[in-house]
Amino acid sequence: MRTVRLVDVAERAGVSIKTVSNVVHDHPYVRAELRARVQAAIDELGYRPNLSARRLVTGRTGTILVAVTSIDVPYFGDLCQRLDRAVRNVGMQIVIEQTYATRESESAVLDQRERGLVDGVIFHSVTLSAEELAAHRLGLPVVLLGEAPAPAGVDHVKMDNVAAAAEATASLLAAGRRRVAFLGHERRGLSHTTGQRLTGYKQAIKAAGMSLDRRLYLRVDDYSPESGRRAVKDAIERGIGFDAIMCRDDLLALGALHALADLGRAVPEEVAVIGWDDLSIAAHLTPPLSSIAPDKDALAGQATRLLMERLNGYHGPGRHELVPYRLIERASSAATDSTVRGRDAAGSDPR
Amino acid sequence: MRTVRLVDVAERAGVSIKTVSNVVHDHPYVRAELRARVQAAIDELGYRPNLSARRLVTGRTGTILVAVTSIDVPYFGDLCQRLDRAVRNVGMQIVIEQTYATRESESAVLDQRERGLVDGVIFHSVTLSAEELAAHRLGLPVVLLGEAPAPAGVDHVKMDNVAAAAEATASLLAAGRRRVAFLGHERRGLSHTTGQRLTGYKQAIKAAGMSLDRRLYLRVDDYSPESGRRAVKDAIERGIGFDAIMCRDDLLALGALHALADLGRAVPEEVAVIGWDDLSIAAHLTPPLSSIAPDKDALAGQATRLLMERLNGYHGPGRHELVPYRLIERASSAATDSTVRGRDAAGSDPR
Repeated sequence: MRTVRLVDVAERAGVSIKTVSNVVHDHPYVRAELRARVQAAIDELGYRPNLSARRLVTGRTGTILVAVTSIDVPYFGDLCQRLDRAVRNVGMQIVIEQTYATRESESAVLDQRERGLVDGVIFHSVTLSAEELAAHRLGLPVVLLGEAPAPAGVDHVKMDNVAAAAEATASLLAAGRRRVAFLGHERRGLSHTTGQRLTGYKQAIKAAGMSLDRRLYLRVDDYSPESGRRAVKDAIERGIGFDAIMCRDDLLALGALHALADLGRAVPEEVAVIGWDDLSIAAHLTPPLSSIAPDKDALAGQATRLLMERLNGYHGPGRHELVPYRLIERASSAATDSTVRGRDAAGSDPR
Repeated sequence: MRTVRLVDVAERAGVSIKTVSNVVHDHPYVRAELRARVQAAIDELGYRPNLSARRLVTGRTGTILVAVTSIDVPYFGDLCQRLDRAVRNVGMQIVIEQTYATRESESAVLDQRERGLVDGVIFHSVTLSAEELAAHRLGLPVVLLGEAPAPAGVDHVKMDNVAAAAEATASLLAAGRRRVAFLGHERRGLSHTTGQRLTGYKQAIKAAGMSLDRRLYLRVDDYSPESGRRAVKDAIERGIGFDAIMCRDDLLALGALHALADLGRAVPEEVAVIGWDDLSIAAHLTPPLSSIAPDKDALAGQATRLLMERLNGYHGPGRHELVPYRLIERASSAATDSTVRGRDAAGSDPR
């Protein structure tokens, strides 16, 4: 295929190459009439500016790097899709990089490896500490997402995981549940995300005047449904009693529902279950799964806005913004006759 | 942050700028000793070549565009993740573009819009015909994925959807099911993918000596669980009887399981269900969902290999390759006493 060159456009429009270049690079001092003539020639000939060359002139690529753990994790697939829309809305495009949550690849995201390819980075970091993030000489605007602590100088958007976990756990206690397990404590060390959710869970238990029982922290190897299933099955087989499970996320909750069905424990009658992320499958599980729903559109929109402000010259201190969430209550955590009796006995008001 | 320039590296290594440039661009005629000295200076100073400039020299970006409908569809999230790994394995990276299955954005994928940004394209096209694909002057190597027909000249990787649908439907009939519905016929016109799966379904029905019943084609507005749930619920409420459902995909199957649970129809005793894609959630649904599992690793690997061959100079005719699949049988389609009785009455051999 023959490439249409700048000179072809100039000939067709009857202007100089410099004028075509000015139009392509959107310089302000081109007369409207000339601009229209050049644009007409560009459209007729199907000219596409060589973007690599254009970058050298404008210094902009029009591309934002989005770095997440893995897009086959439904939460990240969903988030990337919303970031894709938000970034398109401001006339740019995204490139997605998967870090698989390794320190090497997370460092590489910040390590300028992409310099010249992207204008900025939206980064859901999992493994790096605030000190490590601060130690990187960030050559590009970066907005951080997620629960890992951010250095003061860097923009950060997240939801309040502690408050959400406390609210969901409190809703189980208010419905009369007395032994609430937490599913998703990591065997290999507590992640930032799990740490905050566990903190909220503990706050709610203590606020209800109950004592913590470490046997109710159900540990997993990863966040797969299979891990959740095994953890719940093991706990029940070891005789650990509980009448509710607060899950770190919906995939673990899916595994919990599987284990409870296998062992013949009725949900929600015997065990209530609440997940996290409100994946599109949650409403269709058997029974439909209650879940904490982060406002992912707000997350994508706020991250994009903060990054664009940086790209457009904002050099002030890091902004730390929260996005809203909702606890969506479905059948998996509904109060039942027996839990209501338990609740009344415990002195709560019936609704 | 101060940028390390080519000249800084040259000074540190005590060589000319030209020599540094030759090392950076991997020219073969640099002496090993000089190359080592330059590399040491690059490492010490943390020099990163300006990739946009480098592209102008090498003509390669190291980036492959992957275009799919939407990565929040779990099948595509999963596929993109495998393509990411396969492309990394050959030392390149992917950029993901979502088309949302519109004709405009699918045309734009082929329309050289990305020229200068990527070296090649792996494209799951949904809306374009082979003629439309052929009509585009493809300026870059393209490998097509999926069920849409590909022009003869273009490389294409897919699985045999007709054979897989026939096999799954036949397995339901062999287990004694007598009225198998097909869930996922699109109200707004049959897509290539659904068309092939419906064809396989019909082949199996006819091969069993049964007649087709168009009332058993359950139509949907989209491929969401909610659409699947509504279609199955409507059919049952309209009195359409069936003892099995062959679903276009797992998300529709999830909706079917939801509707059957709501209406008190036991799965698999009263209605067997088979999905498609074998999503990671399938094994954990209640009951665990039988599903057709395309070999997604093979799909990603073969597409990457074909594209790399094109990038490395292959200019021959389009290759059309098939990837394997497996029917994973789980509880949702298990034979039951009553279906076995039905099967025996119909003269099949009991297993």
